Amino acid sequence: MARSGETATLSLEEVDRLTRRCLAAAGADDANAAAVADVVTRAERDRALSHGLFRVPGYCASLASGKVDGTARPEVRRLAPSVVQVDGRDGFAPLALAAGRAPLIERTRAQGVAALAVVRTYHFQALWAEIEPLCEAGLVALACTAYKPVVAPAGATAAFFGTNPLAFGWPRGERAPMVVDMATSAMARGEIQVAARDGHALPAGAGLDRHGRASTDPAAILDGGVQLPFGGYKGSAIAMMVELLGAGLIGERFSFEAGERDVEDGGPARGGEFVLALDPAAFGDAGGRHDHAEAFFARFAELAGGPRLPADRRYAARAETPARGVEVPAALHAELQRLAAGG
Amino acid sequence: MARSGETATLSLEEVDRLTRRCLAAAGADDANAAAVADVVTRAERDRALSHGLFRVPGYCASLASGKVDGTARPEVRRLAPSVVQVDGRDGFAPLALAAGRAPLIERTRAQGVAALAVVRTYHFQALWAEIEPLCEAGLVALACTAYKPVVAPAGATAAFFGTNPLAFGWPRGERAPMVVDMATSAMARGEIQVAARDGHALPAGAGLDRHGRASTDPAAILDGGVQLPFGGYKGSAIAMMVELLGAGLIGERFSFEAGERDVEDGGPARGGEFVLALDPAAFGDAGGRHDHAEAFFARFAELAGGPRLPADRRYAARAETPARGVEVPAALHAELQRLAAGG
Repeated sequence: MARSGETATLSLEEVDRLTRRCLAAAGADDANAAAVADVVTRAERDRALSHGLFRVPGYCASLASGKVDGTARPEVRRLAPSVVQVDGRDGFAPLALAAGRAPLIERTRAQGVAALAVVRTYHFQALWAEIEPLCEAGLVALACTAYKPVVAPAGATAAFFGTNPLAFGWPRGERAPMVVDMATSAMARGEIQVAARDGHALPAGAGLDRHGRASTDPAAILDGGVQLPFGGYKGSAIAMMVELLGAGLIGERFSFEAGERDVEDGGPARGGEFVLALDPAAFGDAGGRHDHAEAFFARFAELAGGPRLPADRRYAARAETPARGVEVPAALHAELQRLAAGG
Repeated sequence: MARSGETATLSLEEVDRLTRRCLAAAGADDANAAAVADVVTRAERDRALSHGLFRVPGYCASLASGKVDGTARPEVRRLAPSVVQVDGRDGFAPLALAAGRAPLIERTRAQGVAALAVVRTYHFQALWAEIEPLCEAGLVALACTAYKPVVAPAGATAAFFGTNPLAFGWPRGERAPMVVDMATSAMARGEIQVAARDGHALPAGAGLDRHGRASTDPAAILDGGVQLPFGGYKGSAIAMMVELLGAGLIGERFSFEAGERDVEDGGPARGGEFVLALDPAAFGDAGGRHDHAEAFFARFAELAGGPRLPADRRYAARAETPARGVEVPAALHAELQRLAAGG
């Protein structure tokens, strides 16, 4: 660990160890702390900062308040031949998602298509972190989750949807998978929180202030305002789809319910996650599919203007971080050290 | 049928009969003509004009050119316990989709989740027309299809994606289902064609002209220009997901391939369709789910600003059309009469 005036530079091993120590000090057992720390460390590695160390104080707060059980053991049930449910038993989502992963992969290979319904968990989980292992197992994957209400549907001025991320992944054999992971809000909540912390303005269209007026001030949006969906009424419709899959179908809380019932301890609200996996080999023509899709990606890369694949920036960061380390704002680093010491 | 100077007013029965006569005159057998006419009639009923009679001359052109087999009999195969494939055998999509519907519903109820892969078909199909029967069977449904390249990915200036519609439906018991059906382009191709025909300008963001400049002129976008995705890079990522599900996974043509290989007879290009269905009863808690989702819709309807559910406009039109009839531009009506007479 190196420190300059404003930031501390940590290795990935230090990120992992610090996160585990914070969670353990707040009451998490080894299995839960390791599962959360794995996601936090992968997020820092990929410079997906809004899912990284920034989230650890919230995780600790929800252990301290007693809302989240840091010793929970998820329970896996097969509800139908193609449906696996994981009851997180009031623990954090990463351990529940890990518990469901192998059963989902097994069911998908056996059936062609299968769904994983994760319920009774609390999370700040990045969806790409769940999509990637499924793609690495050769599967196509889709995931979504609802959260607390911070986004006004198109045509409304009151918060009702969460930022409701949707992720999709496509396996590419030896290459890193093509993974889309996007908030259905114009911006991710964490990005707005980071902008507020750092004093940056937001692009137009990010949200409304408490009076329903368009605003680019992150503080005004966070303080009684609302975020807006991306892409107007179409993005709003996708946010609704996320509510219905990630809450209605699996029997978990809609965003508006999570908002009403959360104890606001600074940590994640209760929520579920819907994950779908499809086995390309079950759709016939297994020999030619990989090359066919790769021809598609090759043509995409050659287009005038030079478009990039969705995960390219994350993968570029991933390649650089092990040598460069992770820069953490000094104030956050000090807070984490205090939490790790049980303070 | 009533006629004024500019339009003819047809009953839904007349729409259906006229469409069948046109298709039969071009070589379709009864089963294929009836399946296509059913979709055309439902589109006119719902004032979804870009999938209505406007499309019939194109269907006829593709029969006349020999590209589409108007006597095709789709073949249904179970590729895996949760995967049904329909080979349309070079026919129009509606008969293939109809052939796959009951097997998809049966598989979904047995497995909890199932997919339908429709291949080797030609279509101008409206996805909501396929989603609704699945919702009426009590299932959650998602569908998508790639098409000919008319949309530039975010960051590019050349066409690569189709308008790539994505649809999602949620069953509501006795009520009409909640159905989203949206092009992932800023506008549907058919809407731009209708605007060009009628001389209307488009909203900003619809596309670029042949020089890569933003344009609101439908003719400039159709004549060598490109459409744009809705919602910038996020909408573009969803358009890519549609390519990968609706072509890559099911083993059909990507939009860029459909564009290269189509004979350009004015009718639909070859393409596939991906349909996913989920049985809510397989996700546990069957008793409470309906009421839970209805509470969500009730809260949505009460939001300040008065947002509407995605299909509301279509359902309102549906309620009015049987009494009012369907207005058809006189030139189109004359063309259809000519086609029906074998001209």
